[in-house]
Amino acid sequence: MSIKIGVIGSGSWATAMIKMLTDNQQEKQINWWVRRQEDLDYIETYHHNPSYLSAVEIKLDKIDLFQEVKDVFENSDIIILNTPAAYLEDALKDLSPNDFQNKLVVSAIKGIVPSIKMIVGEFLNNKFQVALEDIVVVGGPCHAEEVSLEKLSYLTFASKNTANSAVVAQYFQTHYIKTVVSNDLLGVEYGAVLKNIYALAWGICHGLGFGDNFQAVLISNAIREMEHFVNVIDPQKREINQSAYLGDLLVTSYSQFSRNRTFGNMIGKGYSVKSAQLEMNMVAEGYFASGCIQDIIHEHHLEMPICNTVYNILYKNQPALLEVKKLTEQLT
Amino acid sequence: MSIKIGVIGSGSWATAMIKMLTDNQQEKQINWWVRRQEDLDYIETYHHNPSYLSAVEIKLDKIDLFQEVKDVFENSDIIILNTPAAYLEDALKDLSPNDFQNKLVVSAIKGIVPSIKMIVGEFLNNKFQVALEDIVVVGGPCHAEEVSLEKLSYLTFASKNTANSAVVAQYFQTHYIKTVVSNDLLGVEYGAVLKNIYALAWGICHGLGFGDNFQAVLISNAIREMEHFVNVIDPQKREINQSAYLGDLLVTSYSQFSRNRTFGNMIGKGYSVKSAQLEMNMVAEGYFASGCIQDIIHEHHLEMPICNTVYNILYKNQPALLEVKKLTEQLT
Repeated sequence: MSIKIGVIGSGSWATAMIKMLTDNQQEKQINWWVRRQEDLDYIETYHHNPSYLSAVEIKLDKIDLFQEVKDVFENSDIIILNTPAAYLEDALKDLSPNDFQNKLVVSAIKGIVPSIKMIVGEFLNNKFQVALEDIVVVGGPCHAEEVSLEKLSYLTFASKNTANSAVVAQYFQTHYIKTVVSNDLLGVEYGAVLKNIYALAWGICHGLGFGDNFQAVLISNAIREMEHFVNVIDPQKREINQSAYLGDLLVTSYSQFSRNRTFGNMIGKGYSVKSAQLEMNMVAEGYFASGCIQDIIHEHHLEMPICNTVYNILYKNQPALLEVKKLTEQLT
Repeated sequence: MSIKIGVIGSGSWATAMIKMLTDNQQEKQINWWVRRQEDLDYIETYHHNPSYLSAVEIKLDKIDLFQEVKDVFENSDIIILNTPAAYLEDALKDLSPNDFQNKLVVSAIKGIVPSIKMIVGEFLNNKFQVALEDIVVVGGPCHAEEVSLEKLSYLTFASKNTANSAVVAQYFQTHYIKTVVSNDLLGVEYGAVLKNIYALAWGICHGLGFGDNFQAVLISNAIREMEHFVNVIDPQKREINQSAYLGDLLVTSYSQFSRNRTFGNMIGKGYSVKSAQLEMNMVAEGYFASGCIQDIIHEHHLEMPICNTVYNILYKNQPALLEVKKLTEQLT
C-alpha cells in the first residue's frame, strides 16, 4: 500500500509542493484540498491552477481533488499544511484532536497564527495535541516561482524526530529539489518567522534611502540577532549559517518581490501602516510576526534592536527615520 | 602638530577614502600620491578625479598632491595603501624597510600580491619588515560608489594592536561612515580575499542558469567555508557574522557590478578564462585569489568545496556545469 499524502491549501507555495510531489518518483497517493469550488473546477478541466503558478501543469492522474478538509485528513497518512498562517484556523475549524491521530503533520507555513500568537508547531501541539515529534516543519530558501521553473532549490525538513523528517523529505526529492534533514523544529520555524521581520526592516531602510552597503550590515546583524533569539528560546546545538536560517533570510531580504520588503518600503517612504495595508490589499506576515515576537522579546529580556525598531515603527507609531537612526548606532 | 596621512593610489576606493578623510573633522594633513601626471593636473585644475568617482569634489585646500611615493612616505605618519593588489609592488619599488619605520601602515587593498602569493599584511611584514602590530587592515562592506553618494556605510579597522585600529578609525568617521575596531588582522584580510572567490563562484552559477534560491544556499555555505578557513589559518575567537566578513561577502555577491561576479558569469556562459579576461580587459581579483588560496587549502588539507570548484574550472580547465553539479551534492 502506497503512502497517502494530503495537501491543505492551494496558493503558490502549495502549488509548488504539488509539483514537487508529483515530479518525485516515490510511489504515493496525493489528496489535495482546494478551497474554492471554481478553482477546483478549473484545475480539473485545464490542469492548471488559475490563480497561482499558472504555468505549472498539474498532473491530475496522480492527484485526487477534495473540497472538504476533513476528507483529506481521513484519507491521508501525512498532512501538509500550506495555507497562509492567517487562514489556518479557519481551514481546520471542523477538526478535532482525533483527526490528527497517527498522522505526520507537516507545516509548510511560515508565520504566526494570529488569534493565539503561536508559531504553527506550537499551535498544533496546543490545540490538536499533536506530539512535537510528529510535526515536521519545511524550511527554505525557496521562492515558489523558482520551483515552477525547476531551478535547483534546497528544502530543510525539521522535526524533533529526525526519522520523521527523513520520511517526509523523501517524497520531495526531484532533480531540482535537494533535501536537508534537521532536528531543530522550533529554531527553523522561528527563524522563518523572524526573517520576515528583517525583510520588512530592510524594506523600511530602503524606503528611507539607505543603500547596499547598509543592507549588508543590517543583514549581518539580523542573523546574529536571530541566533540569539533561537538559542534562548530553544537552546540546542545549531549552526545558524545553515541554509534554513541564513539562506532563508537572504532569499527573502534580497528579493525585490518579498511582500514584507514591499510593505516596509512603503512605511519607509512615509505611508502609515493602515494606508500601506490598504494599498497592498493584504497584510504582510512580518507585521503580525513583529507584534508576536515582541511579546517573547519582552518576556525573555532579549536584546533585539532590529526587531525593536520595526515594532516601534509599526505598533508605537514612532517616526521611521528617527528609529532607524537610533538603530544605526547599535549595529556593528 | 597635526597628524600626517599619506594615501597611495587614486582609483575609486582611494578617491572614496580621500573624500572620507577630508569630510572627517579631525585635524590632519593629507598627502596624496596620484600616479599619472595628467590625472594629477586634472585634479589640481578641476578638483575632481577624471577617471574614478568623478562626481566627488576633491577638497584641495586640505590635500597636498604628490608625484613620488617616496615623498609621501617621508611626509606621513600614517600610510594608506590603496592601489590594486597587482600594482602594489610596483608602487613600492623604490622603498626599503627604513621608509616604513615608525609609521602605521594601513592596507585598504583586498587581494593577493601576485608575484609572492601573499595577502598584503604578510607581504608588508615579509618584504618591508613592518611589524604586524603596526599594520591595520580596512574591511567593508563598502562600495566606493555609495560613499560618493554619502550612503551610510560601516568600515572595520583590524590590527593585532587594536589601539592602532582605533587611531586610524578616528580619521574616517563622518556622518555617513561608522567605524568598527577589530583585532583580527589576518581574518579580515583573508575574508576579504575569499569573498572575491565566492562572488566569482556565484557568477559562474548565475551564468549557468541557477537562480536566487540556489544563490542563498551557496552563500550560506560560503560563509561557513570562510569561517573554517580563517579559524584554521589564524585560530582566535571571532564572530564570522560580523559585517567585515559576512557583510562584505553579501555586498560583493549580491552586487550586479562586482567584477568577480561578471567574470564568473562569463565563464558560466561558456567563455574560456582567456577570452573572458580579454573581453573584460582586466583580471578579476578572484582569479588570482583562487590560485593562491588553493595552495593554502592544499597545505592545510582544508575542506573547501566551493573554492575547489572555482579552482578546477579556472585553472584545471574542467567544464563548469559538471563541476558545479558535483558541488551541489556537497552543499546543505
